[in-house]
Amino acid sequence: MRILGIDPGSNATGFGVVERLDGKLVHVAHGTLRPPRGGALCDRLAYLATGVAEVLALHRPDAAAVEQVFVSASSRSALVLGQARGAVLAALGGAGLSVEEYGTQTVKKMLTGAGGADKRQMQRMVRQALALDTTPGVDAADALALAICHAQAGRLAALGATARGRERGRRRPGWTVRRAR
Amino acid sequence: MRILGIDPGSNATGFGVVERLDGKLVHVAHGTLRPPRGGALCDRLAYLATGVAEVLALHRPDAAAVEQVFVSASSRSALVLGQARGAVLAALGGAGLSVEEYGTQTVKKMLTGAGGADKRQMQRMVRQALALDTTPGVDAADALALAICHAQAGRLAALGATARGRERGRRRPGWTVRRAR
Repeated sequence: MRILGIDPGSNATGFGVVERLDGKLVHVAHGTLRPPRGGALCDRLAYLATGVAEVLALHRPDAAAVEQVFVSASSRSALVLGQARGAVLAALGGAGLSVEEYGTQTVKKMLTGAGGADKRQMQRMVRQALALDTTPGVDAADALALAICHAQAGRLAALGATARGRERGRRRPGWTVRRAR
Repeated sequence: MRILGIDPGSNATGFGVVERLDGKLVHVAHGTLRPPRGGALCDRLAYLATGVAEVLALHRPDAAAVEQVFVSASSRSALVLGQARGAVLAALGGAGLSVEEYGTQTVKKMLTGAGGADKRQMQRMVRQALALDTTPGVDAADALALAICHAQAGRLAALGATARGRERGRRRPGWTVRRAR
């Protein structure tokens, strides 16, 4: 079972691929797609879509995980984030991948045991969980964390776990598996 | 010169193709892409991207025009609109098309002479401008209006017109040609 985690952003889209082998998590690849600055919007979005397609062709994941967006920023930044998500998710859907969404808190809790971990803690925990030689960049670490989270959620689901928790006041499974709609 | 106008939306993405032939505008095609309701987000976005790619393959436009978004709605709706725009614009960019953005007011003014035209007026004016037998749907009419606007802007630019106007308080050329960024 190979999982792609992806963290869409208009300037930097992190990706990370992990594999579950005999109950162990193995790092496959990670990186960041950065559309050339100053390009036209459609070219920048095409860069993201093409980059995702290349990652899929190279690493052939069985499933994908993205961050669930709780919109709180301005509508301008929501539009910009939405455009990046649209290019990335269309590429994933076009390849026939199923995509699950995970809340930030859920991902942090699964990796660090606490929902309030900062970026650096997340990078450290991802490096540790996958026994990496170097610390991945912020966006790639977020993407790897999503992939790890999805792998763990799958393992828990396979074990028949029924843990439930609360996130942002809304009742959800502890690992907040939600089909992206 | 064949122009694709496109009006991205998560439930309905209108498209319209017009051609400028000997100074006259000719209707080529129009329609609306409607992702199946209830599908996963990534599948719905892939549906839009694939649909756009099919329109491009079928009608081979030389340029494209989309609506400029002045975000005023909630950040939730901005995210949803952004996702649809992202899927559509990535498909346009991936095909190497240049995409221009036009403000709503500009499009309305160019078609009806007034910035405050409602949907029905726009549909009527588009039908009249292209001598169509039937009135196109709302989304397709918006898309055709964008294509007509781009064709007119190109004609004005070719004539060396320097008309200037104001839209939403910002100084712009009268036809608000802006490269999508």
